[in-house]
Amino acid sequence: MNQDHSTTEWVGVIAGIFTAASLLPQLIRLVRNKKAEDISLFFLIILFCGLGLWVWYGFLRSDIPIIATNAFSLLVNTAMIILGIKYKRKRYRS
Amino acid sequence: MNQDHSTTEWVGVIAGIFTAASLLPQLIRLVRNKKAEDISLFFLIILFCGLGLWVWYGFLRSDIPIIATNAFSLLVNTAMIILGIKYKRKRYRS
Repeated sequence: MNQDHSTTEWVGVIAGIFTAASLLPQLIRLVRNKKAEDISLFFLIILFCGLGLWVWYGFLRSDIPIIATNAFSLLVNTAMIILGIKYKRKRYRS
Repeated sequence: MNQDHSTTEWVGVIAGIFTAASLLPQLIRLVRNKKAEDISLFFLIILFCGLGLWVWYGFLRSDIPIIATNAFSLLVNTAMIILGIKYKRKRYRS
């Protein structure tokens, strides 16, 4: 059983690294361009709720890959919401 | 135990609906604008690998919310890769 368990864990960890990595280009583009036109705050908040629920789900299942991946994605998502609000405000003032 | 089990399942299903929904704006924008400039095929493929691994992980854990959410996201992601290639090609020919 132990060998299966660790294979499963590894599949989850690698899956998590891939999905978390796929969030990064949007964040990098936001930081580099300092423009939030193509950012939908509404859907970022929807994603925030989803990721929060996945972290909770991970705890309910005591499932480390689920908790770790979604907690990291939640961080990236939070940074995008904060920057998105900041650059949308800056645009209204200029 | 059964009541806990169904609560956990519900948390996973709702989390899945939120995260899957957050993928839709990018797909809608791609279909509507028929332009793929701000689409990174490389990261879409990274996300494709991650989602595929999450589906496998769901089967290894026999975890329905994980399988269902990531299978749906995989469909949306595949549609984006196909459309992304189509519109990037169209741009090079014109």
